[in-house]
Parts: sequence; C-alpha cells; structure tokens
Amino acid sequence: MNGGFFVTIEGGEGAGKTTILQGIAGWLETQGWKVVVTREPGGIPIAEKIREVILDRRHTDMDARTEALLYAAARRQHLSQKVEPALKAGAAVLCDRFVDSSLAYQGHARGLGIEEVWAINRFATVERLPDLTLYLDVRPEIGLARVRSDHGREINRLDLEDLSFHRKVREGYLLLTRKFPERIVTIDAEQPLERVLEQALKETEKRLKGFNIAASNNIK
Amino acid sequence: MNGGFFVTIEGGEGAGKTTILQGIAGWLETQGWKVVVTREPGGIPIAEKIREVILDRRHTDMDARTEALLYAAARRQHLSQKVEPALKAGAAVLCDRFVDSSLAYQGHARGLGIEEVWAINRFATVERLPDLTLYLDVRPEIGLARVRSDHGREINRLDLEDLSFHRKVREGYLLLTRKFPERIVTIDAEQPLERVLEQALKETEKRLKGFNIAASNNIK
Repeated sequence: MNGGFFVTIEGGEGAGKTTILQGIAGWLETQGWKVVVTREPGGIPIAEKIREVILDRRHTDMDARTEALLYAAARRQHLSQKVEPALKAGAAVLCDRFVDSSLAYQGHARGLGIEEVWAINRFATVERLPDLTLYLDVRPEIGLARVRSDHGREINRLDLEDLSFHRKVREGYLLLTRKFPERIVTIDAEQPLERVLEQALKETEKRLKGFNIAASNNIK
Repeated sequence: MNGGFFVTIEGGEGAGKTTILQGIAGWLETQGWKVVVTREPGGIPIAEKIREVILDRRHTDMDARTEALLYAAARRQHLSQKVEPALKAGAAVLCDRFVDSSLAYQGHARGLGIEEVWAINRFATVERLPDLTLYLDVRPEIGLARVRSDHGREINRLDLEDLSFHRKVREGYLLLTRKFPERIVTIDAEQPLERVLEQALKETEKRLKGFNIAASNNIK
C-alpha cells in the first residue's frame, strides 16, 4: 500500500464522531488495513506540552491568535511525529478532529476568519491533508440534547456555550464543505447511528477505490 | 501622540543591536517620549511558557514548522499583551528582533521559505507591523569576530553555527530589505559604533517626522 490512507472526522457536539470512527476502524481492519486511531495531541510530548500552555488560558490573557497558532503548532507536531510515520508505513490513520475544527470553531465561530486560520494551518499541514474528511452534520439543538442525555459523558466547556455559538460552528462547517468539496463528504448525522455508519463506510470504500486507482495510475 | 512609535532592530550576531537600541532609547527620551525597550518573550508569562516548549527541543524531535509556529505564537502574545498596550498609551516601543528574525533565520537560512514563514507571521502581527525596522548589516566573519573577542558576552549556540549558515541569514535579511523597502532601513554596521548610532538616530528622526506629518494629515 503506497502512502497509507488518512481519514479525519469532523462535526459539532453530539454528532457521534467517536462511534463512527470506531466503526470505520473495525471495517478497515477487516479489509486488511493496519489502523491507527488518534486525536490531537495524540500522546506526542511536545504537542501535549503545547496543549498545557493552551489550557493555561484560564489564568491569563491569551490572545485568540496566539491560541490558533498554538493549535496549529500542536497539530504540526502530531502530524509529523505520529500521523506521517504511520502513513509512510502504509497504515490507515483515523483522526478525530483535525484542521477543519480550527477553521469552523476559531476561524468562523470565533470570528478570526476561515481564510486567516487556513493560512496558518496550510503552513502546519502542507505535506499532508486528509484523503477523506467525513463531516457529520447535525443541528446543534439535536446534538446538544444527545450529549446531555448521555450520562456516561462529562459535559465540557464547549457543550455549555450558547446555542448561537454552536450554530456558527455548523455554519462554518457548511462553508468548509463548499470550500473543499473534493475532500469533505457531508453525512446527515440526525439519522439513526446505524444509517450514519453505513453511509460513512460507503464513502470510505468509495474514496479508497478512487485512491487505489490513482495509486496504480502513478505506478504505470 | 497618536498610536505610539514602534521600532525594531535586526541583524546577525555581533552587529551591535543592543548598543544601538539603548542609544535610540536615550535619544527618544530626550525628545520627550516614554520609551519601552523589550525583546521577545518580554516577561509575558504565556510567551515565556511557549519559549520553554521551544527550548525542550534538545530532548525531543521538534519539527521546524512546529518551531516556527511556536515563535509566531510567542510573538503574538508579546505583541498583544505588551507592545500594543504601550503603543496605545502613546509610548515608543523598541524591540530587539521581531518578525524579520523569523523570516531571515527560519524562512531563509533554515530553508522553510520566506513567503511561508511570512504567512504565519502576518497572521501573528496583522494589527501592527513596526513603523521602522533598522537592519544592521555586517558580514558574518566581522560580526562573529566581534562576538568572540567580547569576553563579557557568552557565546551561544547560534554563534557556533558554521559561517555558511550566517551568510544565509545575511542573504535572508538582504532579501527582506528588498521585500519591505518602505519599512526596513539598512545601516552599514561595519562602521565604528558611533557612526552606526549617528545614522540610526538620523533614520529614526526622519521616520518620526514623516510619521508625525502622516498623523497630522489624519487629523485634518
């Protein structure tokens, strides 16, 4: 397998990303892939330390642009130390949130600008963007209700932001699906989870097929 | 005074930046300016913490792009927490090294690309670039000899890089003087220090004059 297969999953709170990612991992394994499931900072010491600095914002006056640059730095390190080597070894890497989260949350919802945040993330990711990004689309009122009814899951700070923020996040993601139509596939995540997984697997298989054809064309 | 006056000083090792900066500070004070002399991370806790992460590279495998993003993050925080407020209060801020150091050292000499490193630094500095940047130009063989003969000053890691690296840094700076001709003024720093300071003061006065005219035009 030439160069691995890089899939990221994106979406608002309660979209079902973790479950779908696990389902794709299981399916890819049955197809003979070595699979690495990860999320930033992914246990990479430098990226973990950068996260610690970001979390210090409770005590201090962190500028929004500083924060965006730190996320991009942690992303770069996780990419170069964990994702890239796994892909080079031919693995399928499934990453829970990636560049599009920064674009939707900080670029659009926080108002820094998608183009602006994209500029620093292009610098961070230049060698490798995902082969496929699955965006699980759910209206925030539905997603947040799911999160709140799921007693096994702790409510985090972002869950508590007001609804209008989460609507902006979704608006941001929808803008991204138009900006990167070749890379990002939207799946209606208000359907039952089995249907969402079914579509996610279908899209993964389809991308993989196109991908293998492209790879064999390169060999010719 | 409307919006302060922001001066940065740049150059290779042994160019005399610190001395010249102190001289400009003293002169500006005689002109009635409140002066803030600083350098990154400038005692800003978040920026200091980011620096600590950068220094951890001895133990770990820090990617060059991660490092560039961290420098940009520290710069952003220092700018927003220290430089901007001082400028808004009407002070003259003199900063030893700024964005051009990243462009010359990491962009050009380390090979990341000036345009690439500029993209993330434009994001970091968007609200405020220096009103004047003084580039003290000295051939590295002269600058390094000065550093080595100055027993009061510790030789650091960069001093020990081979001459070809320092030549690339200078080449980078010279490219920048062409890229930003309105902002950057080059001063021949192989002259005696008194002559360098004399020219630095002349350029500062000149820029300040144009600056005040521009400011009063805005008032009309």
